[in-house]
Amino acid sequence: MKVASYIRPLVANLDVYVPGEQPKVKDLIKLNTNENPYPPSPGVISAIRKATDSRLRLYPNPTCEPLRNRLAKYHRCHPEQILVGNGSDEILALVLKAFVEPSAGSVVNKDVIQYFTPSYSLYPVLASIHGCRANPVALGKSFEIPALSQLKRRGWSFSAPLSLITTPNAPSGTAYTTSTLEQLCRKQKGIVLLDEAYGDFAQENAMELALKIPNVLVARTFSKAFSLCFQRIGYCVGDVQLIQALDKIRDSYNVNGLGQIAAEATLDDINYYHKTWKRIIDTREGFTSALRALKFEMAPSQTNFIFAKPPDKPAKQWLQTLKDNKILVRWFPYPETKDYLRITIGTEAQMKSCLKVFKAFLNQ
Amino acid sequence: MKVASYIRPLVANLDVYVPGEQPKVKDLIKLNTNENPYPPSPGVISAIRKATDSRLRLYPNPTCEPLRNRLAKYHRCHPEQILVGNGSDEILALVLKAFVEPSAGSVVNKDVIQYFTPSYSLYPVLASIHGCRANPVALGKSFEIPALSQLKRRGWSFSAPLSLITTPNAPSGTAYTTSTLEQLCRKQKGIVLLDEAYGDFAQENAMELALKIPNVLVARTFSKAFSLCFQRIGYCVGDVQLIQALDKIRDSYNVNGLGQIAAEATLDDINYYHKTWKRIIDTREGFTSALRALKFEMAPSQTNFIFAKPPDKPAKQWLQTLKDNKILVRWFPYPETKDYLRITIGTEAQMKSCLKVFKAFLNQ
Repeated sequence: MKVASYIRPLVANLDVYVPGEQPKVKDLIKLNTNENPYPPSPGVISAIRKATDSRLRLYPNPTCEPLRNRLAKYHRCHPEQILVGNGSDEILALVLKAFVEPSAGSVVNKDVIQYFTPSYSLYPVLASIHGCRANPVALGKSFEIPALSQLKRRGWSFSAPLSLITTPNAPSGTAYTTSTLEQLCRKQKGIVLLDEAYGDFAQENAMELALKIPNVLVARTFSKAFSLCFQRIGYCVGDVQLIQALDKIRDSYNVNGLGQIAAEATLDDINYYHKTWKRIIDTREGFTSALRALKFEMAPSQTNFIFAKPPDKPAKQWLQTLKDNKILVRWFPYPETKDYLRITIGTEAQMKSCLKVFKAFLNQ
Repeated sequence: MKVASYIRPLVANLDVYVPGEQPKVKDLIKLNTNENPYPPSPGVISAIRKATDSRLRLYPNPTCEPLRNRLAKYHRCHPEQILVGNGSDEILALVLKAFVEPSAGSVVNKDVIQYFTPSYSLYPVLASIHGCRANPVALGKSFEIPALSQLKRRGWSFSAPLSLITTPNAPSGTAYTTSTLEQLCRKQKGIVLLDEAYGDFAQENAMELALKIPNVLVARTFSKAFSLCFQRIGYCVGDVQLIQALDKIRDSYNVNGLGQIAAEATLDDINYYHKTWKRIIDTREGFTSALRALKFEMAPSQTNFIFAKPPDKPAKQWLQTLKDNKILVRWFPYPETKDYLRITIGTEAQMKSCLKVFKAFLNQ
């Protein structure tokens, strides 16, 4: 029997998600995966070191109870309205499993997720893995959500069992107002997950919608705003019954112990993080102005990255030039994104290096 | 619209897996979740502390490459034959997703997992979550795998797409010989996953089968033998094509960074762990003899726990007596397990405390 025959056809035929490169080159300026340039707070570092002892032999808290208690205070809700995941990627995978039927044998139209394009390129991959259909709907020219009256015409369904909305959006960096999101959420007959991975860098966030509209979930991550990519902590907030459904299908010990401790300590040091967000936003605004002066085109960002259309030459050529100068940024090979570079906002010094390369390339 | 209506009927109707209690009572002797009583090696503790710095802001290695390289040396295979998971629970969930069709719309008989009973009580839960059928087949009276000639009569299928075999078995603690497993694996037309969570406490293990029989996967965990429950590191070994299939459907960054570092450091200190295994085995043998003298019945254990049938009174009553004395052990409410207690082997002192309670209860 051939080994390939053991594998489900659905899995054998999958196109996989390609995360940004994580190379181990020295002196590389890494602006390709939206990591925070600043370290976690000293309190977080010391909390982890202090917890690194014989307790590692024990299972971590299976329900992340202490962390959920703190998050509940932070968001002024009940701990039962919160589920913690192994990064928000796990939350996204769980949401499909809980609310969307796989297409095989499904009741009509219960087997679809929908999302706007461009947005998080993981969504279609999650649909393929789950074996459901994907309904991508194009954003407007400035990456705005089309008017409610136009959405249906563009193929958006108000009865899809699950809609995934990245807000602020990635890779465009653009924000949606809470009132726009609220109107949309109230019209949807299925679950809407607002994926706020970058919410802390924005002027407003939509957490209140998860607390007042029963079909809305908000997902957050400690990776970006809280400099904790390494330890995989994401969570989502919403109606108790929805959270219970997600809780049933997660692994029993899905969140590692030192990650839980780091996340708890993070919430004790929230002022430290507010300062890093302000620095990143200041750097972003300065970098945006400098790029505009060089004739780069971009929509205003409310995240820790910008999505910029470089002048004169194809974006892919700019990508290569940066790479030759040991600067890594992200480029997505889709029709709606191929003219842009997604550049993470690093430190002031890193963005100056980036600008220097751009200027030299323009003057060639 | 009622909130419950958003949830898939499959999920709404799930019976969840109940992990052993993880209470935070002081002075509790915790012998209920098979944790190792000895801490990780000093080298592991210091490796984690050393790595706790600004790198936490970065994503961990998405493919666990350095860890897979070391594991490949440890098992004398190629890194491409290894997949690392967020605990071996994640590996188990991935194996169902990769090799078993959900029942709805499935080709006949591609939608079933089978396993022996009693074994890991998570298996039927995984089947429910995945939406496939479960085929539990009873072990023999001494928890042995029935002879190949008898298996079919007992309902075992040689064409099931996935068979999960806990070896040594839990909760019975009994071991199967590699030759028994090899005969069975060679007869199976689907995947066999040998779940060796407790393999390091046994006289032999079946890793060689994963390296020579294409339909065999062996799963291991750092939780028990390597005292690393807290950090969620499991892995499986097998044919490159099977590993690639599993790799396609995992989350991109499924394994936290400090866990990867801890696991790498573990493999540098393997002699330390051999010593803890010997101590645990010695304690187990002494404890077993002492219990037999008290008329407890049990099959020989090759794990870090024993599965013992207490005399005179129902097992549940013994469970309560232990609990009243701040000793936690595990009891499973199934017909084939309800007469037994599963007792993790702790330190010498802990097992003496346990014996003392048993003796006092017998003399009441």
